[in-house]
Amino acid sequence: MLEELLNNIGSLDKASMEAAQKKLDSLTKPLGSLGKLEEIVVKLAGINKCTNPKVDNKAVVIMCADNGVVEEGVSSCPKSVTAAVTNNFTRGITGINVFSRLTGAKMVIVDIGVDADIPYSVILNKKIRKGTWNMAKGPAMTREEAIAGIRSGIDIIKDLKDEGVNLLGTGEMGIGNTSTSSAISAVLTSSPVEEVVGMGSGLSKKAYQNKIEVIKRAIEVNQPNPDDPIDVLAKVGGFDIAGLTGCFLGAAIQRIPIVIDGFISAVAALIAVRLHSGARNFMFPSHGSAEPGTKAVMKALDMEPMLNLNMRLGEGTGAALAFQLIDAAIAAYTQMGSFDDANIEQYVPQE
Amino acid sequence: MLEELLNNIGSLDKASMEAAQKKLDSLTKPLGSLGKLEEIVVKLAGINKCTNPKVDNKAVVIMCADNGVVEEGVSSCPKSVTAAVTNNFTRGITGINVFSRLTGAKMVIVDIGVDADIPYSVILNKKIRKGTWNMAKGPAMTREEAIAGIRSGIDIIKDLKDEGVNLLGTGEMGIGNTSTSSAISAVLTSSPVEEVVGMGSGLSKKAYQNKIEVIKRAIEVNQPNPDDPIDVLAKVGGFDIAGLTGCFLGAAIQRIPIVIDGFISAVAALIAVRLHSGARNFMFPSHGSAEPGTKAVMKALDMEPMLNLNMRLGEGTGAALAFQLIDAAIAAYTQMGSFDDANIEQYVPQE
Repeated sequence: MLEELLNNIGSLDKASMEAAQKKLDSLTKPLGSLGKLEEIVVKLAGINKCTNPKVDNKAVVIMCADNGVVEEGVSSCPKSVTAAVTNNFTRGITGINVFSRLTGAKMVIVDIGVDADIPYSVILNKKIRKGTWNMAKGPAMTREEAIAGIRSGIDIIKDLKDEGVNLLGTGEMGIGNTSTSSAISAVLTSSPVEEVVGMGSGLSKKAYQNKIEVIKRAIEVNQPNPDDPIDVLAKVGGFDIAGLTGCFLGAAIQRIPIVIDGFISAVAALIAVRLHSGARNFMFPSHGSAEPGTKAVMKALDMEPMLNLNMRLGEGTGAALAFQLIDAAIAAYTQMGSFDDANIEQYVPQE
Repeated sequence: MLEELLNNIGSLDKASMEAAQKKLDSLTKPLGSLGKLEEIVVKLAGINKCTNPKVDNKAVVIMCADNGVVEEGVSSCPKSVTAAVTNNFTRGITGINVFSRLTGAKMVIVDIGVDADIPYSVILNKKIRKGTWNMAKGPAMTREEAIAGIRSGIDIIKDLKDEGVNLLGTGEMGIGNTSTSSAISAVLTSSPVEEVVGMGSGLSKKAYQNKIEVIKRAIEVNQPNPDDPIDVLAKVGGFDIAGLTGCFLGAAIQRIPIVIDGFISAVAALIAVRLHSGARNFMFPSHGSAEPGTKAVMKALDMEPMLNLNMRLGEGTGAALAFQLIDAAIAAYTQMGSFDDANIEQYVPQE
């Protein structure tokens, strides 16, 4: 059934992309001099199958879930922080609240597995279970649960499409989710665990060593199959990552551009690409997170971050900052004058 | 007289910086997790000597000038484009017009040496001369002219301070100014010319080789003294770079934060730092320009770009995009809730 949905992922519209590039080349600036901002515009044209893509209805989807592996002491924060921050998203005081306001983005807060009873007036109820099992002792979830999480993400994006959302960002909240992300990225990028484990929200040296050991154990115990992304997700992932994977696939199915936030989101993006390589066409990178695993994952995605801010807050904060750059790209594309307007003869360098 | 002015450059206010960091550490996020955005806030506090720095009155200063070296065929564009684009800045159609509108920044357009008669209603008249001499044949300007250019920049910033401007960006327009910037950066960073010469606004392979030869000749003919930044500026620089150097020094004198745009601005920033190392405290990097010389100059400045967009448009476009990040930093600082607000106990990792 998931496979059937993935068959709906189409390709970028070449004609619209060429027309957009042609318009960019007519603007009063040296050819290609807006760099990645031009690539953004061209890709948006290809996604929207039109030469005047709009990004005026933005949403950040924030997947919140708990991770059983926290009982191994991999995080500096108690598990209860997941529920506390999830609730704080509704109170306007978190980082992503601030950056969403700044960029005019709507926040879609999703409980996909928080280990607490959550009030569901603003927060969406997609709870699979109150947190995963401890991956250091066995699979974090069943294969069916992983697929259910992905389906939730796909469904949410469908609803947002119906609401007219035309630019998506991803975010998450889940104590322990740099551990699950490190485990997945080690398996999917064949990286040594040591290279993809970071300090998360802050760790002592001893706790950092323990985190590495726990992740190694989780991989050893579960033997996830690197050629089966859902197996990896189920065994050493989390409900948040499952939901985000669904968001990336849903964005591709619905043809909505989607911005990858930091490490955890990038891991979900990689799972999505491994499930359907065409999903990559709808993704945009944002920042290079301070989590060291991000590098390997972005390389596997063949993407380069646009922002180099050494951030590691999650929540979708990096994605929201990239919204500003996408707005700037569209502003240049729609508001700059042409060479004709500028009374300048265009020069095209010869080889 | 210049030296006397430079004596007015003070240091960052430590107490305000510590207080700002303390407030940042109280916000509901892992310690330090906003990365460079936190560094921005702390530096702004140090510059403003207060814990609630404002960045709500922004200006981009755009220095426009012609370069005699263009007669050597170093640029793909005819010299007349400098005057055309300078005029277009007043018509709302250039890249920096778009990004200034987007970020609410005022544009200060300065004719510091355009080789044309410019109408001076909107554009400031600080013209030193109608373009420099050809540096491949001798000094681009006299030492007195270099100092006059610097003084103009300092004066403009003083006027902007009086108008209440609290965040500056730098920009420029001048056909041939990647050649002058390459020459200066080769001399000031002891880099081989080949490593600091780029494609400018676009060049054929043959024209690129010629550009390298011309810059080498300019350095050979003039023998600029690397220990005397004004000598380097006068012999192989431009009026735009002189004016921008003055802007960086003026910003330091007036204690206004100033964002470096791309390659040409970074070269001016480096000259300013070589004239008074304290000027660096008031500077903020923006993007890593596609011009290869930017790397050596940013390294000499000991700064890392925040944006990685492969842009090479100049005009101050990269600086304006960084304004968005500075706005985001201040928004997070002023709008996020504290751990107390968040009902979360703060965790500080132990060594």
